[in-house]
Amino acid sequence: MTEANYAYEGLDRLLHERARLSILTALMTTGSGRSFADLKRLCELTDGNLGRHLEILREARLVTISRRGRGRTAESTVKLSAGGRRAFLGYLEELERVLRDARGGESADGEAAYA
Amino acid sequence: MTEANYAYEGLDRLLHERARLSILTALMTTGSGRSFADLKRLCELTDGNLGRHLEILREARLVTISRRGRGRTAESTVKLSAGGRRAFLGYLEELERVLRDARGGESADGEAAYA
Repeated sequence: MTEANYAYEGLDRLLHERARLSILTALMTTGSGRSFADLKRLCELTDGNLGRHLEILREARLVTISRRGRGRTAESTVKLSAGGRRAFLGYLEELERVLRDARGGESADGEAAYA
Repeated sequence: MTEANYAYEGLDRLLHERARLSILTALMTTGSGRSFADLKRLCELTDGNLGRHLEILREARLVTISRRGRGRTAESTVKLSAGGRRAFLGYLEELERVLRDARGGESADGEAAYA
């Protein structure tokens, strides 16, 4: 019997950080990508924060960013890359494991055991 | 119709950080608490890291730590507090929302849309 393990190494900080998890989920729910403005609104992030987290995701090749137009009217479209989608699906599996573990223990010893 | 929102404000950094999420899940699966040594092994944390995260959780009143014995043979037992358990259950609900959202989008536009 292997001992239970709660280390959850699959919760890579790159994807687990709340703002990035938020961005990745917003991208997962569309195949056509999302504009910078849409992500800002959907994830409730400031320009600076969104830009910083997208740069981290882009450098890790989890998302692609394409620009259309020039100057003030330019619009960026952000998409999950194929690798980003795979990585995020792996992360979601680990997240499901956390939930199964935690929910499994929920009723283990009854409320009375908690002070 | 309210617009979808992916900000996930319920993912409080206090509980979402991987090491603390690991500790809280390990505590959720038992009503009688866990020793420092057990948590170290189950969560694969160093003495220093475990001590630091437990201190953060204790200061936030999410866990209680009791000591038995003295000096080198003393043993600490860590338990979820009632408030900690409530907070963690609320966190888990938000985590389930992330999974529902992300899984819902999984097949939305088909694989072909991802470059």
